[in-house]
Amino acid sequence: MPKLRAHNISMSLDGFAAGPDQDEDNPLGVGGRALHEWAFATPSGRAMFGGDPPELTPGLEVDEAWWRAGDEGIGATIMGRNMFGPVRGPWPDHSWTGWWGPEPPYHHPVFVLTHHVRPALELDGTTFHFVDGGIEAALELAFAAADGADVRVGGGASTVRQYLAAELLDDLHVAIAPLFLGRGERIFDDPAGLAGYGVTEVVQGAGATHVRIAKGG
Amino acid sequence: MPKLRAHNISMSLDGFAAGPDQDEDNPLGVGGRALHEWAFATPSGRAMFGGDPPELTPGLEVDEAWWRAGDEGIGATIMGRNMFGPVRGPWPDHSWTGWWGPEPPYHHPVFVLTHHVRPALELDGTTFHFVDGGIEAALELAFAAADGADVRVGGGASTVRQYLAAELLDDLHVAIAPLFLGRGERIFDDPAGLAGYGVTEVVQGAGATHVRIAKGG
Repeated sequence: MPKLRAHNISMSLDGFAAGPDQDEDNPLGVGGRALHEWAFATPSGRAMFGGDPPELTPGLEVDEAWWRAGDEGIGATIMGRNMFGPVRGPWPDHSWTGWWGPEPPYHHPVFVLTHHVRPALELDGTTFHFVDGGIEAALELAFAAADGADVRVGGGASTVRQYLAAELLDDLHVAIAPLFLGRGERIFDDPAGLAGYGVTEVVQGAGATHVRIAKGG
Repeated sequence: MPKLRAHNISMSLDGFAAGPDQDEDNPLGVGGRALHEWAFATPSGRAMFGGDPPELTPGLEVDEAWWRAGDEGIGATIMGRNMFGPVRGPWPDHSWTGWWGPEPPYHHPVFVLTHHVRPALELDGTTFHFVDGGIEAALELAFAAADGADVRVGGGASTVRQYLAAELLDDLHVAIAPLFLGRGERIFDDPAGLAGYGVTEVVQGAGATHVRIAKGG
């Protein structure tokens, strides 16, 4: 059975997976970029974010391997609208085409959760579909599009939290970054304590502590 | 200069350092005992909690070393009233003498933060002093009693949080336990993001992820 997975969800020590006050200048919220420094420091992470990849120096192998695992076997991605862009409410026009430029790093169908649909957006290698039927409808569409491969919840925090609360997420990789944000969006905010989930692996990397969480784990 | 330190403060992945609804049957709050399983599994931790110490089997060295470091160089301990006992409000009498029986594991002066003072309680090797002057007054008394040694904030969560927020704590060791509680008491709940603190070390043990946090670190 194909799985629903989330990877490389960075979280601060005080529990925030994104900073507050996201806008065009702060796609990860204020202070949120620091959560992802561990990923920017890896060759694959830096390449995806458009920088000159550093060498895979000793010590980076763990972070690199966890980062790369997030792409393996994925046939479609679901994301929240705020991960697609900073525009809120009805689309004033269709000029916003995502944070990633003309060739987004997905190269498979992406389903954007929104209350305001718009026509599918086809960029180089990636088509964004806008879905207003809720998280389960998006999941059904994504599994169909993935055609037997796994589906990834790309983020952001609120989207991960919703799939966790509904126990629809099978696997979750959280990278704990060694810093405090103070404010922002939590992913673990379920008063039931995520009773359906367990931790199956914890590994220390150079820049983050990698925690694997599985349904029934 | 002697330091104010807190050690072996266990925290769930969702950020809780104690379960909710503490009472005499649940000194660590409901579900809170699971936070400390990593410590109970070490020889020193088990010995302190009154069980038969297990062998120091390979893999336990990291957890054991972090646990033991919490006692080294400490001359006095400060704790919140809920760490001393489940009694709330004015003391009905003085029959409650702590969770630990006739020989508490401290063997140095302990200062209990409370709004309801009572006479000092002298047990075998440990005297408990009840202080109603606030966290700074307790700190002054504890440093005087420690006579050049460091002072430890024993807990609970609320007491650690207060000393952190006031930037009076110099060093903090948090042990992240690989589980979720859902509800309880947070230690990191400062909207300023503990800007005065930094993470200086993260080490993975068999049962917990050990994080060292230092003022200015």
